[in-house]
Amino acid sequence: MDKIYYPYEEFRSDLQNLTQKIDQNFNAILGISRGGLSIAHHLGEYYEMREVYSINTIGYEDTRKNDSVKVFNIPELKNAKKVLIVDDIVDSGDTLVEVLTVLNEKYPNVTFITASLFYKKTAKITPTWYVKEPKGWIDFFWSVDLRKK
Amino acid sequence: MDKIYYPYEEFRSDLQNLTQKIDQNFNAILGISRGGLSIAHHLGEYYEMREVYSINTIGYEDTRKNDSVKVFNIPELKNAKKVLIVDDIVDSGDTLVEVLTVLNEKYPNVTFITASLFYKKTAKITPTWYVKEPKGWIDFFWSVDLRKK
Repeated sequence: MDKIYYPYEEFRSDLQNLTQKIDQNFNAILGISRGGLSIAHHLGEYYEMREVYSINTIGYEDTRKNDSVKVFNIPELKNAKKVLIVDDIVDSGDTLVEVLTVLNEKYPNVTFITASLFYKKTAKITPTWYVKEPKGWIDFFWSVDLRKK
Repeated sequence: MDKIYYPYEEFRSDLQNLTQKIDQNFNAILGISRGGLSIAHHLGEYYEMREVYSINTIGYEDTRKNDSVKVFNIPELKNAKKVLIVDDIVDSGDTLVEVLTVLNEKYPNVTFITASLFYKKTAKITPTWYVKEPKGWIDFFWSVDLRKK
């Protein structure tokens, strides 16, 4: 698959685009680690919101056909009404589906909305907002820039 | 105080500098939200470590003279031996001191090491590694870039 470098300037422009699309209020931002962390950080600053949290997932091969996702380090969200979950890319959708399942079970009174930079139309879930579709493998600046001279 | 814009390219270069200084191994990276989140994200990718967590703090004025810091959303670290805590700037040092106090109490068998981009010599704690001293108020790119045209 083609590798496409995704530089910081494109990230900045895409996040500005995303903030134009997001037309609901929310009380907290939850970044899926690792891919959603920089997005959560920037959006927390943009919305002047200190309630910026993270959540962890581990994907592993299941004994059944589907891959499974384990969700852990769930933040305290009892006092939130609506929470924006962010990730860099919704690819298969497995991670986002499992995160939503776990969070909805633990916090039935919280509404979860979702946003990503990239979204593949073949994913099993569509985020509430996204910016664009990937045309190949995305080499995000946070994955490769520190290794450059 | 002078406001100094801190662009992404300087962040990248400073983080590369930081990785040259860090001469210990560790099992997890813990970013102090919000300022440490982008650093934790980049370092997690650089060290190919999926154990990238966050922790939250709230500063509030105490009835006594000192400001107090409340620490919450403490991640699960039982299986870690050494954890790198990262933040953008160690200013008064109040946040880092309180985070270390809470973590050392909860995880007496884990060793915590610390790193920041900026460190003020007047802080009450010196991080294990840091890159430079601030010459004024730092406007980090993550705080201001999304508001630019």
